[in-house]
Amino acid sequence: MLKKKKNEDNSEPCVKKQIQFADQKQEFNKRPSKIGRRSLSRSISQSSTDSYSSAASYTDSSDDETSPRDKQQKNSKGNGDFCIKNIKQADFGRREIEIAEQEMPALMALRKRAQGEKPLAGAKVVGCTHITAQTAVLMETLSALGAQCRWAACNIYSTQNEVAAALAEGGFSVFAWKGESEDDFWWCIDRCVNVEGWQPNMILDDGGDLTHWIYKKYPNMFKKIKGIVEESVTGVHRLYQLSKAGKLCVPAMNVNDSVTKQKFDNLYCCRESILDGLKRTTDVMFGGKQVVVCGYGEVGKGCCAALKAMGSIVYVTEIDPICALQACMDGFRLVKLNEVIRQVDIVITCTGNKNVVVRENLDRMKNGCIVCNMGHSNTEIDVASLRTPELTWERVRSQVDHVIWPDGKRIVLLAEGRLLNLSCSTVPTFVLSITATTQALALIELYNAPEGRYKQDVYLLPKKMDEYVASLHLPTFDAHLTELTDEQAKYLGLNKNGPFKPNYYRY
Amino acid sequence: MLKKKKNEDNSEPCVKKQIQFADQKQEFNKRPSKIGRRSLSRSISQSSTDSYSSAASYTDSSDDETSPRDKQQKNSKGNGDFCIKNIKQADFGRREIEIAEQEMPALMALRKRAQGEKPLAGAKVVGCTHITAQTAVLMETLSALGAQCRWAACNIYSTQNEVAAALAEGGFSVFAWKGESEDDFWWCIDRCVNVEGWQPNMILDDGGDLTHWIYKKYPNMFKKIKGIVEESVTGVHRLYQLSKAGKLCVPAMNVNDSVTKQKFDNLYCCRESILDGLKRTTDVMFGGKQVVVCGYGEVGKGCCAALKAMGSIVYVTEIDPICALQACMDGFRLVKLNEVIRQVDIVITCTGNKNVVVRENLDRMKNGCIVCNMGHSNTEIDVASLRTPELTWERVRSQVDHVIWPDGKRIVLLAEGRLLNLSCSTVPTFVLSITATTQALALIELYNAPEGRYKQDVYLLPKKMDEYVASLHLPTFDAHLTELTDEQAKYLGLNKNGPFKPNYYRY
Amino acid sequence: MLKKKKNEDNSEPCVKKQIQFADQKQEFNKRPSKIGRRSLSRSISQSSTDSYSSAASYTDSSDDETSPRDKQQKNSKGNGDFCIKNIKQADFGRREIEIAEQEMPALMALRKRAQGEKPLAGAKVVGCTHITAQTAVLMETLSALGAQCRWAACNIYSTQNEVAAALAEGGFSVFAWKGESEDDFWWCIDRCVNVEGWQPNMILDDGGDLTHWIYKKYPNMFKKIKGIVEESVTGVHRLYQLSKAGKLCVPAMNVNDSVTKQKFDNLYCCRESILDGLKRTTDVMFGGKQVVVCGYGEVGKGCCAALKAMGSIVYVTEIDPICALQACMDGFRLVKLNEVIRQVDIVITCTGNKNVVVRENLDRMKNGCIVCNMGHSNTEIDVASLRTPELTWERVRSQVDHVIWPDGKRIVLLAEGRLLNLSCSTVPTFVLSITATTQALALIELYNAPEGRYKQDVYLLPKKMDEYVASLHLPTFDAHLTELTDEQAKYLGLNKNGPFKPNYYRY
Amino acid sequence: MLKKKKNEDNSEPCVKKQIQFADQKQEFNKRPSKIGRRSLSRSISQSSTDSYSSAASYTDSSDDETSPRDKQQKNSKGNGDFCIKNIKQADFGRREIEIAEQEMPALMALRKRAQGEKPLAGAKVVGCTHITAQTAVLMETLSALGAQCRWAACNIYSTQNEVAAALAEGGFSVFAWKGESEDDFWWCIDRCVNVEGWQPNMILDDGGDLTHWIYKKYPNMFKKIKGIVEESVTGVHRLYQLSKAGKLCVPAMNVNDSVTKQKFDNLYCCRESILDGLKRTTDVMFGGKQVVVCGYGEVGKGCCAALKAMGSIVYVTEIDPICALQACMDGFRLVKLNEVIRQVDIVITCTGNKNVVVRENLDRMKNGCIVCNMGHSNTEIDVASLRTPELTWERVRSQVDHVIWPDGKRIVLLAEGRLLNLSCSTVPTFVLSITATTQALALIELYNAPEGRYKQDVYLLPKKMDEYVASLHLPTFDAHLTELTDEQAKYLGLNKNGPFKPNYYRY
Repeated sequence: MLKKKKNEDNSEPCVKKQIQFADQKQEFNKRPSKIGRRSLSRSISQSSTDSYSSAASYTDSSDDETSPRDKQQKNSKGNGDFCIKNIKQADFGRREIEIAEQEMPALMALRKRAQGEKPLAGAKVVGCTHITAQTAVLMETLSALGAQCRWAACNIYSTQNEVAAALAEGGFSVFAWKGESEDDFWWCIDRCVNVEGWQPNMILDDGGDLTHWIYKKYPNMFKKIKGIVEESVTGVHRLYQLSKAGKLCVPAMNVNDSVTKQKFDNLYCCRESILDGLKRTTDVMFGGKQVVVCGYGEVGKGCCAALKAMGSIVYVTEIDPICALQACMDGFRLVKLNEVIRQVDIVITCTGNKNVVVRENLDRMKNGCIVCNMGHSNTEIDVASLRTPELTWERVRSQVDHVIWPDGKRIVLLAEGRLLNLSCSTVPTFVLSITATTQALALIELYNAPEGRYKQDVYLLPKKMDEYVASLHLPTFDAHLTELTDEQAKYLGLNKNGPFKPNYYRY
Repeated sequence: MLKKKKNEDNSEPCVKKQIQFADQKQEFNKRPSKIGRRSLSRSISQSSTDSYSSAASYTDSSDDETSPRDKQQKNSKGNGDFCIKNIKQADFGRREIEIAEQEMPALMALRKRAQGEKPLAGAKVVGCTHITAQTAVLMETLSALGAQCRWAACNIYSTQNEVAAALAEGGFSVFAWKGESEDDFWWCIDRCVNVEGWQPNMILDDGGDLTHWIYKKYPNMFKKIKGIVEESVTGVHRLYQLSKAGKLCVPAMNVNDSVTKQKFDNLYCCRESILDGLKRTTDVMFGGKQVVVCGYGEVGKGCCAALKAMGSIVYVTEIDPICALQACMDGFRLVKLNEVIRQVDIVITCTGNKNVVVRENLDRMKNGCIVCNMGHSNTEIDVASLRTPELTWERVRSQVDHVIWPDGKRIVLLAEGRLLNLSCSTVPTFVLSITATTQALALIELYNAPEGRYKQDVYLLPKKMDEYVASLHLPTFDAHLTELTDEQAKYLGLNKNGPFKPNYYRY
Repeated sequence: MLKKKKNEDNSEPCVKKQIQFADQKQEFNKRPSKIGRRSLSRSISQSSTDSYSSAASYTDSSDDETSPRDKQQKNSKGNGDFCIKNIKQADFGRREIEIAEQEMPALMALRKRAQGEKPLAGAKVVGCTHITAQTAVLMETLSALGAQCRWAACNIYSTQNEVAAALAEGGFSVFAWKGESEDDFWWCIDRCVNVEGWQPNMILDDGGDLTHWIYKKYPNMFKKIKGIVEESVTGVHRLYQLSKAGKLCVPAMNVNDSVTKQKFDNLYCCRESILDGLKRTTDVMFGGKQVVVCGYGEVGKGCCAALKAMGSIVYVTEIDPICALQACMDGFRLVKLNEVIRQVDIVITCTGNKNVVVRENLDRMKNGCIVCNMGHSNTEIDVASLRTPELTWERVRSQVDHVIWPDGKRIVLLAEGRLLNLSCSTVPTFVLSITATTQALALIELYNAPEGRYKQDVYLLPKKMDEYVASLHLPTFDAHLTELTDEQAKYLGLNKNGPFKPNYYRY
Repeated sequence: MLKKKKNEDNSEPCVKKQIQFADQKQEFNKRPSKIGRRSLSRSISQSSTDSYSSAASYTDSSDDETSPRDKQQKNSKGNGDFCIKNIKQADFGRREIEIAEQEMPALMALRKRAQGEKPLAGAKVVGCTHITAQTAVLMETLSALGAQCRWAACNIYSTQNEVAAALAEGGFSVFAWKGESEDDFWWCIDRCVNVEGWQPNMILDDGGDLTHWIYKKYPNMFKKIKGIVEESVTGVHRLYQLSKAGKLCVPAMNVNDSVTKQKFDNLYCCRESILDGLKRTTDVMFGGKQVVVCGYGEVGKGCCAALKAMGSIVYVTEIDPICALQACMDGFRLVKLNEVIRQVDIVITCTGNKNVVVRENLDRMKNGCIVCNMGHSNTEIDVASLRTPELTWERVRSQVDHVIWPDGKRIVLLAEGRLLNLSCSTVPTFVLSITATTQALALIELYNAPEGRYKQDVYLLPKKMDEYVASLHLPTFDAHLTELTDEQAKYLGLNKNGPFKPNYYRY
């Protein structure tokens, strides 16, 4: 019934699987949304993977090939309501979580501030996200705020087994391991939801699979559910479709488009990861290089600023005249791709569009030109057009292919056209912290909202909560906010605690 | 009845007079809007003033002290439906207009593109704006698009007499001169509106005085009026008040908050004018200076970026945690004013708030500290608090006062706390071109909108028109926009001609 | 015998007169030196001029047309050994000096530090420089260090009369006024040198005229002279010529090429003044503009960095491959002028070369292109080639000419090709402070050097003194220098007090 | 007799071994030179290592444990005058060389330009450098210019075996393999020098070991040697010592201090590698981070510029007031380390000094502070002071240690205080190309210099050759140099082909 493609190889565990609802396939073939939103925070940081790998290797011997589903599992307190790879990794996982805690001060502050009032007392949260140290900090925060949690993984490869172990040892009902089969995947989700004597009243989803499962199998459950918090482009798109079709039966919060989260996922993250991704894969020197960046949205702005600062000469292509004018005013020549394609050393796509770089462009590039994608999906570069007999592919490093033309010309293709910054760089914990805090506040908001504030529709996080996410991260920078005086607040017609801007404010 | 303060001296003709509607005074004492929007384009560029001065001097002898209202006036074709200072200045004014035309290619392109179809055929536009060479280019564009125009000045000091002469000579019914009395001001407006055999069907206003006059004197005129285009913060605020009170009887277009216009009025303009304003007044060297910028909105972002690039060390204060976090990520220490007030060399306000810098702060500044305002109005620095007997004021240059403490400490106060970039810098013609084009397109949109598209409410310019404003300015930069293929447009779910972004897009 | 051209108008008092030694004319027609060194500090800041103007106006009535040489002059103490315009302006001049003192903390610190030991005790300094408030601070510092001073002006227009008055009132023998005739000029110099009972033992020169006069008239004086300090490109060139010819009979210090002074005169000063000069003359908006900068030395580097930061697209031309490679690595496309001449909005020369922009280039520029010079002299743009009958010149503002081609194309030529930053901007007092401090330390070094350290040759200021100039300016920035520990100094093989770098260090 | 320390582990093959001449030990304990010069180009790029590793793995099986010295070796043409690991790797090595050729266009251009005249005809070059693909391109260039070459490795770990194989197969007499013993090391050098019927007349050295060996064993050889080209700090220091002691018996060229090479080794390379090194080791997000950079020489300038551009707040410490003033003018607060040590997130040393960061500083850092060194050697951070019982070291990744204080505070120490950019980043091939070209031109210059131009002393590469190195790299950037006209050259007193600057020019 449901078709699920496995990732081709283990080298890229963070690429979201492409599970689709069979009966909605037609609809989902459309592009998720009009702007190329991205959800970096859905990936796990390479550092986590690194440390996991080392951990994995030392525990390999104690691992066996039995499926976790076939094993009897109990933690040290005798609790067995979970299903993970190996409970013995709990100590190591705990250390990982403790390190993550130090880099996620916003959630720790939230635990402290909300300790007295327990804003999630009574909340029964079922979650389906990547299971990483950062997620563990989120789950333990929700717990500290009063919630009960049951959790499954939203990706069959992204679970950090030792973190799952630590969570299970800590009493959480976690159902996830690295390398689940498709059947395992849905079994885990079902184990989270289908429990005797426990029924969720909040959903935290990343991709929409959990939501879909409940819709399909336990539609009655929605009677007790107060809301859904969804953070992925795909999941949000599904919710809007449901809403449009009049089938959304509880309020949903789209946290993907929160201001703070967007700025960090796109502008600030990509400003650094474009350099990092290019260096790790190609060791290219940026100074003096000619680069064309396709698309001048938040991602493009970040890429352009970083490369300009490193001494590259940057050209921009755009379809939107307002963004185009911004590129001009920021000091970039606005060109059509063909005007510069013969002379550039690096081509970067960040449009959210498809076939931005096509075979005709690739044919005209000069020898050694690097081609990569920082945009929404793997559609921007027409990689398929390079799979023709006269071109030779040579894998020179992980994530780096040389595509060789008959005359010897080589194009350096990175990550086979998939997202460079997810494949070849890392997402800083600080960015993940912004996302997790946004999720926690969205849960609090939906759970505590007075009757009638939210209808059966998709909402953005209220600006005041968005501002609160930002304010919780200011101490990291030893940043000191100014408070309005009463007189000033009156003059501005504002509440001293915000929100400080109208909804349409552009930041 | 109406109370009108004259500007103290001629040196600052571009400061908007503070005319207020007596009966609405209570309401208007509130702050116009929640964000510190500004309308730079309402000022005239110093260059215009410059050239005017020289012109004025050579025509001085032919000028007399008779009020224009008392003179018989006729242009070379015998037309006398205008009232200006001196028709003999027409040739000189024409040259000024021709120079402005070269710097306003967007309007010239609009003339060309719309030449065939005359989208304003039948439009009778009554306007009340600054009367400058740039406005003349706008008026002659409207005329080329088919409109008839009658025009008054929105400021008693800002009229360029020679431009008014050229317009009158060209057949426009202009009623304006530099140095009108308050009575003259309203007389001129009335002469535009109250004409036998001609009734306006479109209003182009800057400040709301024209709109107010018609409301007061000729309310029946609104029956034939298709819409109002308003471009000032104050005027827009008045319209929203009318709308809220249910008294707005035609659609109105708020062009002040168009995306393109806002970016140029604030970010791009202030990035340059902060340097220009400081240099022209103080000759200060920026390298190594410590600066605190209060407020990190568009204006603050522009100021900070420019000063950082010049080698200053910049601190930021903010009340909004999201903007505060942006300041951090852009590399500025976020502080409370008091933390750095003793050490900084320059203090710049751009908050739109009041009493951001108060006497207590001023008392703690170091000798030679420069204090200036780039924000919304003259309220940000509590200048009144410096008018105490123990402090000595010394005017050292135009727009520059030394305020001297009993111990000899001097604070360098610029423009007495009024807007630095309007008082001590110029607004580039390119920025004025963006505004004028936005106004022209708003008139076209309102005039041609199908019945029912616009109700009796205040609207933002449709995004597609906003994008069109931008696209008309791209040729200035020899910038080449990329067009979507059919396939791409379908993939993105977009029309190939835009709009390209949802309304909430933040740019 | 000597031929002296007057400046054409008063609007540009700071352009160095072109006095040349008749008998050396042949030699001086050669270019002064191989690199385009410049001496900004020889100009007076516009601020000084400003304040002077205002002063002048209030004293105009008390001024008469009698030549100062024909007046009996006495200060309030009865001393009459000076010749100035009007002793009554002394109070006003004193205020100017006091303000300058606040911006020249290095000299004030020098006064304090050297107060006890009087390192110039016994020194009899004859000086010939611009007579401005900044020079007054230098002279009073020399005096505080023990020196006796007699002073003349090095430029017939640059004297601030009120400052000269304050100096005379303070007991200095000053011979200078604004608007001297050529005869006055040499008479003043002679009065400084040719005194009964007083013979100079140190020379501080700016341009070499004083040195020349003594060579011509009083060659025997050199027997008692311990050294010459010279700060202009021209003067230094003359000294090197004398040295080469074996005619230099005392040690001379070339302070023009000190590291600290050079960096401020060129890189730091021009980084700011290119923006200032362009804005004040043309109000051009920098964002998105295409600019070509000819020459990537210190001046070019400053111009390029500033314009890039303001959002301009900058191209560079170079003849030196090393500087060219630097331009590439800094992110500028290196082109030949002709490649971009049709597309650029602004052309800036900073090469020190001649005929860098020639008529052929000017013919190909687009309408409205701005052309200006930041380089060594007025030779870079071939302005003479524009003085042909088919081109019309139109003066649109002070320092701004439109040159109009038969087809209507206008080129905007600034300062008639002379130095933009001297003609249309100001030199910050901080830069003048660096120069004055360098001069003072050079005098101290030469005066106190042990017998034999300096021969009859031209020397650069010792690096240790150069470092001392820098260190005296650090407190302005509240900058805290780290001191080497004994152990570290030993490890590095350095003296803890410097010098810290070998002579060839490139900074 | 000679004592040689092996590198501790294979993970860092590029760290220069610390071989010292026993009899000169006393002298060499002194610091090599007054400025912290560095020679990045002595390292091999990680990319080379990467590709080698993969190569190695597939050839491992065919390798045996026999020492190369014990094997009979012959290439396909029967030539056996070499000693390498495995001639079968030649094809793979050839591909590596071909890839390197594409990134070293300057040497390829040199081959082309000098093809006709063979400027090294008759030259017999003995070389001792890292043996990498880049070196192979250099050797084959020397050969194409007419030289005969014999080569050994200057580091026991840095040889790329497959490259050595390709060279041997191509007829070069190479004596080197990865993992030589100390005895092997000197044996290889000896085999290069001590040949029947062949005597070197040029030396190309990197570190001075080859030169030392000839001095010790074959001093008579110097009779026929025309010169030494040396490119390392250490080797150059040794040469200056020899010269000072009057023992240098041939001319030597110090290519380490060439202008072009220095700029790339330090400023341009470090501007990129500081970001790369920090990201690869810690995944730190730069935005908003507070960083202190110790030392504002070329390396410090590069680090500061890069971090500022990424949104970090950067503080600088300096001992030299001129560099300190530069830091101020570039917008960095100049502090003493202790003023900011408690608040910074990252500490970077680039002074060339010792004990710049000591235990007392480390004790005061905040939790999570990252500490690393970009300076001359491993002396800047007093790492030894951290090896005390109360501190726990935890290796969290390759090159990353957490040092944990009793209270749980963790300091993140990178590369144990060794050079971050050599240990944790790569040196771009472009930088290696600059060095190799400089070496080739130095050989040509020395070999062809007319009798008497060079004495028995150490020389810098003539500026004209330095400029030529730069010019050969301009085509990479499609950069077009401007040529002087005859008239201009005369005006400037320059030769049209350079040199264009005096020797003291500071760039």
